[in-house]
Amino acid sequence: VIVGILTDFGTRDHYVGTMKAVVLSVFPAATLVDITHDIPPQDILTGALELAAACPYFPPGTIFLVVVDPGVGTRRRGLAAQAGGYRFVGPDNGVLSVALMHLGLDSARIVELNDARFALPTISPTFEGRDRFAPAAGWLARGTDLREFGPEVHDPVHLSVPKPTRTPGGIEGQVLRVDRFGNLISNVDAPLVMSLAAPVDIVIAGRHVPRILSTYGQAPPGELCALIGSSGHLEIAINRGSAATQLDARPGTPLVIRAADGGKR
Amino acid sequence: VIVGILTDFGTRDHYVGTMKAVVLSVFPAATLVDITHDIPPQDILTGALELAAACPYFPPGTIFLVVVDPGVGTRRRGLAAQAGGYRFVGPDNGVLSVALMHLGLDSARIVELNDARFALPTISPTFEGRDRFAPAAGWLARGTDLREFGPEVHDPVHLSVPKPTRTPGGIEGQVLRVDRFGNLISNVDAPLVMSLAAPVDIVIAGRHVPRILSTYGQAPPGELCALIGSSGHLEIAINRGSAATQLDARPGTPLVIRAADGGKR
Amino acid sequence: VIVGILTDFGTRDHYVGTMKAVVLSVFPAATLVDITHDIPPQDILTGALELAAACPYFPPGTIFLVVVDPGVGTRRRGLAAQAGGYRFVGPDNGVLSVALMHLGLDSARIVELNDARFALPTISPTFEGRDRFAPAAGWLARGTDLREFGPEVHDPVHLSVPKPTRTPGGIEGQVLRVDRFGNLISNVDAPLVMSLAAPVDIVIAGRHVPRILSTYGQAPPGELCALIGSSGHLEIAINRGSAATQLDARPGTPLVIRAADGGKR
Repeated sequence: VIVGILTDFGTRDHYVGTMKAVVLSVFPAATLVDITHDIPPQDILTGALELAAACPYFPPGTIFLVVVDPGVGTRRRGLAAQAGGYRFVGPDNGVLSVALMHLGLDSARIVELNDARFALPTISPTFEGRDRFAPAAGWLARGTDLREFGPEVHDPVHLSVPKPTRTPGGIEGQVLRVDRFGNLISNVDAPLVMSLAAPVDIVIAGRHVPRILSTYGQAPPGELCALIGSSGHLEIAINRGSAATQLDARPGTPLVIRAADGGKR
Repeated sequence: VIVGILTDFGTRDHYVGTMKAVVLSVFPAATLVDITHDIPPQDILTGALELAAACPYFPPGTIFLVVVDPGVGTRRRGLAAQAGGYRFVGPDNGVLSVALMHLGLDSARIVELNDARFALPTISPTFEGRDRFAPAAGWLARGTDLREFGPEVHDPVHLSVPKPTRTPGGIEGQVLRVDRFGNLISNVDAPLVMSLAAPVDIVIAGRHVPRILSTYGQAPPGELCALIGSSGHLEIAINRGSAATQLDARPGTPLVIRAADGGKR
Repeated sequence: VIVGILTDFGTRDHYVGTMKAVVLSVFPAATLVDITHDIPPQDILTGALELAAACPYFPPGTIFLVVVDPGVGTRRRGLAAQAGGYRFVGPDNGVLSVALMHLGLDSARIVELNDARFALPTISPTFEGRDRFAPAAGWLARGTDLREFGPEVHDPVHLSVPKPTRTPGGIEGQVLRVDRFGNLISNVDAPLVMSLAAPVDIVIAGRHVPRILSTYGQAPPGELCALIGSSGHLEIAINRGSAATQLDARPGTPLVIRAADGGKR
């Protein structure tokens, strides 16, 4: 059984290793896969988006152990969930909600983690990742049925992901995430872009991007370009450079797309 | 068999991957778990503390491969040790000593790694992690008895961890480590804090922290707070911020705790 | 089967985790080992050197999944290769070439990845690591013969690694890579150094390094020293400090070695 792990713990402390130790204590045969631990501290939205982007590439049966948890130790609930053949463990703050929505909330089953049998004997109010979520992931991997963990939850916290708006002249969107290459991944997906008549004109941070390429290498080095990235969203990039640095752009930076002739396809 | 690995090698070079390759060459069925590789270069004390914090969460039988080794290639010894159901491999510079002390030095057995059968044929004087320690961990995982590795060691190097002092008015301690969230983990443990009459007044870097909360989220965002962290020690934190940055604090920064009424509980 | 993974993806995004998910989807029993993901973005030479340094320490049968790929989505080929008992998957831009050369190009077999059966159904032109290379590594791990993947390639891209030159007075070389400790690893290997009469005088960044030690700890803390590093190359280091920072040196920084008496051994 694969356990995919995503946190904002970074890797300079022992925290992630300790969580893995707990998972393996419960279920030694687990195959642990790091998704990332470098979610910006307490950035629930980025965590939710990264999880949702990675999730469909994992084989069915995978358990996701997700800890971006600014409310650790407070009364926010801990959740276990299953949807689309996957299972999830994490805090009830929306960090699971984007992935669950993609998989279909109607068919999702969500329960509250409140059975002490599936947690460590002592739960630190500052590290539930280790004491509550990691053991729950271990027990799920070991085959424990979701319903054993606690009562069903019908009102999990949902994250509101900024959505693009269609305007008479085009589309107004924004940057959702910036990757390590400085590529700016927007909230505008491919079908929406294609609903405009080509060619399009993209404006971001006062700069015009004249057309949409297939891949980075089609642009001359150093030149700003747009393309549909690997998650199916419009992305602004610089071949062999960082669009984030050059445009001083970040999550939330607005982006406007206009059909060059103002018309619809 | 789990092999937990802790180094100061960072992850930008191939060094950690190469060590893992060597472990798996000796014992292909090992389950490798990274504790951290971002111990500050040559910082033996931080390495020892991180190891000791993570160790008890690993299942018995785990082997710890620990390489923070400024003396690589010199005459300092290499060690293998067993204590409390765990086994350890690392240099004799104290990096194992805090974990061993927690597990009980009386019952620990420590040997010197000096049998060439359990090392690579050529030992680089600048990378014993790869050529001596990794293969030894592999052989331990494969079931080789500790006594096979070399003669018993009765005088391993012990690290002196700064200890808090009890004063008439309270406790004087210091910051031991800073985690990625900027939380300041001190050397004052929970029983010691509780030996003072509540409420307490904590002074660090010229700032007063008025009371001890259960968890970060109980403090308003941006406000300095104190709590008992996940390793059972007093911790200074800022909810959704970095106490290290805001106080300009680091390992060694002093911390004074006073019972507000000057009395003992 | 071990799959060793080396990329320039960093670890702050989900990219590496997603590639691992794809490998495990094809072959769940793979043992995944990170070599490094912190190759500087698009730095093919550094990727090639790190791969070549790590490769010989992996057990035969290991598959290397290597993605440093500025030409992703363009017409550059994808390759699978086998040599010296190892197998490789990666783009045809030279990133595999140094390792293959060390293993013997004569006996290497290289094919182009062009069979859709061994890729994901949709190939994003911006993430072939996930959609083409990771599944190919999975199929190799599962036992698919190299020849099944596509036609043989006889003209793979070769990287030119800067070579040292022998001069009348000594050797002129350069820094090839800088590791996390700030050690400067040169392109001058041990046999070449030993071809000069000892003692030698090394000049780098206007500083003289008087002699070659066995290991860092033989130099007083803070002092510049030279030694033969763990990959068998001349290395400039500072015991408990960073030579890169102190000399402001980087890949490409020249290095001159002279026999102190001007003579040959």
